[in-house]
Amino acid sequence: MSIHRMIQLHPQVGDDFNEDLATAARHAMFCALMCTSCADACSAEEMDMRQCIRTCSDCADICGATARVAVRRTGRDVGMLRAQLEACITACDLCAEECARHDHEHCRLCAEMCRECAADCRKALVGD
Amino acid sequence: MSIHRMIQLHPQVGDDFNEDLATAARHAMFCALMCTSCADACSAEEMDMRQCIRTCSDCADICGATARVAVRRTGRDVGMLRAQLEACITACDLCAEECARHDHEHCRLCAEMCRECAADCRKALVGD
Amino acid sequence: MSIHRMIQLHPQVGDDFNEDLATAARHAMFCALMCTSCADACSAEEMDMRQCIRTCSDCADICGATARVAVRRTGRDVGMLRAQLEACITACDLCAEECARHDHEHCRLCAEMCRECAADCRKALVGD
Amino acid sequence: MSIHRMIQLHPQVGDDFNEDLATAARHAMFCALMCTSCADACSAEEMDMRQCIRTCSDCADICGATARVAVRRTGRDVGMLRAQLEACITACDLCAEECARHDHEHCRLCAEMCRECAADCRKALVGD
Repeated sequence: MSIHRMIQLHPQVGDDFNEDLATAARHAMFCALMCTSCADACSAEEMDMRQCIRTCSDCADICGATARVAVRRTGRDVGMLRAQLEACITACDLCAEECARHDHEHCRLCAEMCRECAADCRKALVGD
Repeated sequence: MSIHRMIQLHPQVGDDFNEDLATAARHAMFCALMCTSCADACSAEEMDMRQCIRTCSDCADICGATARVAVRRTGRDVGMLRAQLEACITACDLCAEECARHDHEHCRLCAEMCRECAADCRKALVGD
Repeated sequence: MSIHRMIQLHPQVGDDFNEDLATAARHAMFCALMCTSCADACSAEEMDMRQCIRTCSDCADICGATARVAVRRTGRDVGMLRAQLEACITACDLCAEECARHDHEHCRLCAEMCRECAADCRKALVGD
Repeated sequence: MSIHRMIQLHPQVGDDFNEDLATAARHAMFCALMCTSCADACSAEEMDMRQCIRTCSDCADICGATARVAVRRTGRDVGMLRAQLEACITACDLCAEECARHDHEHCRLCAEMCRECAADCRKALVGD
């Protein structure tokens, strides 16, 4: 039960399976949910976390859109995919930076996820 | 690196961790991406798959919203969460049924994922 | 340039145009953005608005999914549409209630939008 | 009842209201729903519209994320906002181009909306 297998079953994919892109899609999806959770946890902290809520919320939306775009393989949409992967890399880099400023464990975990997601999107962008 | 661990780090969660709900959030997120991929694969098939594209697209949107709502733990929002879990169960049941009508392997996989997601949401709804 | 006209141009719609459903789709989309904005404004307020951030964020996600489902007209997906409209009505009712508790003008505006969206979804549900 | 007024009520906005950005948020939201509707209408057409379904679906996701990011004003998130506005401009330009290839009225309308959205995002990017 995996996104990778799902994409391989697409009638136009077959031998043209792009593993890096599938991994980027999967991790962008994860990152979207992790950032949503971190924004929510930040809003429940006692200290002022408003910048981190904003950054995580924005990053969640950008990662979510990236995952959906990256998972599609019908026809071609390379220009759009590349533009969104680039936006996702910027978002994840900035969110990792913001989360790394805080001592909360959920921020540490979120920063780690964002760094992984940015790295995966970079790999997908090169191999694309 | 997991959604379960992320939610457990929320300042208001601690001992009140709801594992069934975390699992439902995680699988709804997966299901959203699997349905997005299946709709895309269906649109690339030679035969007429328009009903399946519609059903998978709708189910993807509903699962995506459910995952985001289910992952939040600040304050309380039980009424909204229950309503959305119920919509997600209906969506996944119907999408599993539609996908089960077709011979494509991606439809078979999507139907399986939808059934799992519906089962997880049902468990979360009871334990809520 | 309108959603109503767009839906009327769908090849399977024609005389079968459902004006109430189109209005519900349009307002659910608006409501999703208004709730996103209100959650963001709440996070910037001095007083403790964490419950309102949670409620508005959840409502934004539910309304956003509802708008996308309600705008599609290919084939049939009535069961899923009805389930999501019902979740949206619950979400908007609860969010209007939460926002009405606060004196901020953005909360007042958000509550008004949520009430309108709930009313539109109810009309769409009956006429469906 | 408007997004512009909503954003002006944000506690950190006041005199710093960015009208171009509010307009871009509003139109990106509209464009997301118009593209969702066009993808759906395309899937119901008799002729092969699979490329247009793909392009409109991707553009819908990118515009939807852009609207949510563009509507937030808490703290600062300029780097992320600019990256997403740029992705949205690319997406709308490409989607307008694809839709302009087809004779369907819904494609013509979608192309027009995409061009408007791209122009609004460009203005927001400059004035930012």
